[in-house]
Amino acid sequence: MIEGYSRRKVLLLGGLGFIGSNLAQRLVQLGAQVTLVDNFLPDHGANWFNLDGFRDQVQVHLSDLRNSEALRALLPEQEIIFNIAAQTSHSDSMSNPLLDLDINCKGNLTLLEACRQVNPAARIVFVGTRAFYGSPPFLPATEDSPILPRDIYSINRFAAEQYHLIYHLHYGLPVTSLRVGNIYGPRAQMKHPKYNVLNFFLRLALENRPLKIYGDGQQVRDYLHVGDACEAMLLAGLHPAALGKVWNVGAGEGLPFIELAQTIIELAGSGHLEQTDWPPGSRNYDVGDFVLDIAQIRSQLGWAPRLSIRQGLAQTLAFYQKNHNHYW
Amino acid sequence: MIEGYSRRKVLLLGGLGFIGSNLAQRLVQLGAQVTLVDNFLPDHGANWFNLDGFRDQVQVHLSDLRNSEALRALLPEQEIIFNIAAQTSHSDSMSNPLLDLDINCKGNLTLLEACRQVNPAARIVFVGTRAFYGSPPFLPATEDSPILPRDIYSINRFAAEQYHLIYHLHYGLPVTSLRVGNIYGPRAQMKHPKYNVLNFFLRLALENRPLKIYGDGQQVRDYLHVGDACEAMLLAGLHPAALGKVWNVGAGEGLPFIELAQTIIELAGSGHLEQTDWPPGSRNYDVGDFVLDIAQIRSQLGWAPRLSIRQGLAQTLAFYQKNHNHYW
Repeated sequence: MIEGYSRRKVLLLGGLGFIGSNLAQRLVQLGAQVTLVDNFLPDHGANWFNLDGFRDQVQVHLSDLRNSEALRALLPEQEIIFNIAAQTSHSDSMSNPLLDLDINCKGNLTLLEACRQVNPAARIVFVGTRAFYGSPPFLPATEDSPILPRDIYSINRFAAEQYHLIYHLHYGLPVTSLRVGNIYGPRAQMKHPKYNVLNFFLRLALENRPLKIYGDGQQVRDYLHVGDACEAMLLAGLHPAALGKVWNVGAGEGLPFIELAQTIIELAGSGHLEQTDWPPGSRNYDVGDFVLDIAQIRSQLGWAPRLSIRQGLAQTLAFYQKNHNHYW
Repeated sequence: MIEGYSRRKVLLLGGLGFIGSNLAQRLVQLGAQVTLVDNFLPDHGANWFNLDGFRDQVQVHLSDLRNSEALRALLPEQEIIFNIAAQTSHSDSMSNPLLDLDINCKGNLTLLEACRQVNPAARIVFVGTRAFYGSPPFLPATEDSPILPRDIYSINRFAAEQYHLIYHLHYGLPVTSLRVGNIYGPRAQMKHPKYNVLNFFLRLALENRPLKIYGDGQQVRDYLHVGDACEAMLLAGLHPAALGKVWNVGAGEGLPFIELAQTIIELAGSGHLEQTDWPPGSRNYDVGDFVLDIAQIRSQLGWAPRLSIRQGLAQTLAFYQKNHNHYW
């Protein structure tokens, strides 16, 4: 199915970041005509090295979801839009809630208004987050699990997803929302652990530093390799069954956090565990056990993760071993 | 319990509108020291006549949720804050989504940031809406019913409610959210039917004009008199059990829309029914049957509606018969 991207015009919003650049590389391989938009939000994942090897095969615009004029100029030709741009820090959304609002709400409304006005036929894949579910009352969390956001980021990102569904309901825009779990893999921001603890653990292990775990580390999470996540997005951008849908995208099975850390240390051959108590206040950000139910996308699109956690971690460690000077 | 408002300093945001002014009148009767803030948003309910008879017993500031400086100046003395200010038009939220975002999201974040910084101990009662539930999969809709917004307004108002709960979770702000159903009664905006069809029907009947019903009019809704709604808010502002809670506030029982119209015509002694087909596109705004489950607030606060629909409509018709020159 994803051979259908050949010669298609595809726009990636947030295209130089972690997920965006992995998706861009895959789309270039598939022969798509790829345009990337990124605002290089400080401390986020945008990184020119993420385009290493295919920089001259994509168009890049340094712009922003909130820039209506730029969007109106770029949108008319596009056939499929991947909307991955976001302020992604939970803690930054608490310390600067109005900036989070501006990017995650106003930015998405500006995009949707532009799509409605200049290109209502373009497929849109919105990439949402498991954080909508907060700390779910049952596991695995299905798409019908209650919406229980635990920070401003999760509230605003949920609003952004719902805007997309409203523009589908009222104006027929062909949208799909994917709620992704913990994603890891090459091309992630690795300078600090604010957005993604797993990726940062890979760095700590490679640097032979302590991997710090709060509490007993028994909280279960599911971890998905970015390549598998991109495959789900690509299918959702073409498949008719995805129109107007909301689907979870995760590993579908959980692993205790401490086992993850041990596996990383084993595969890296360096680093060591360090267990400490939770710092004051930090538990407000923790949601305990978390596993996504992926039965919907599995049955509707035939998608399932291909890489085991060991395969995915080994591939990722190899990438950063080679390229760490571009990431930390 | 609500005698506890005597000499308490109370701030009403959206204080000159329909619900706000009814609440203000009641608070003045209870001996509270009442300050009202309103931005006189065009086409909304702010009306100086709403303060008729108690204008000199309240402080009024023409300001706005988005005005951080004004809020910081007003907040320090307040003990209880009723947050009723909102852009309330479903259709305006679709035609001008960025204005809706500015008021309903940015305004509430600005308020909460100001509360956190200058008066984190003040009780806050946020007045939300049944629109969070959209078209519920089962009736009556409980507080655990899925969040299924059907327009930009409902998305942004849900975000606003969730901001309040997050400020409770992270910073301990003593908040309560009440999700109110269809409210009718004196002091409503009656110039156009955009925000509240029931109130406008009262005007049409009093003017001996047709009450237009789309389709068969069999959709069931619950209708609550504003006096009963205010009683719930007053209890929620004082009762310790209300801290951090989300409760529905509605009649708890439904009435077919056409029966409501017939009752209005009968009580007014004028007006007549006119049934027509749904205009194109308008069904997107309709949610079908809707009744709120009010078991939670009933058992936790002992609140229940006191007025029957006939009593409430008769009292409301009498008010507008006397004062219509101030409302249309």
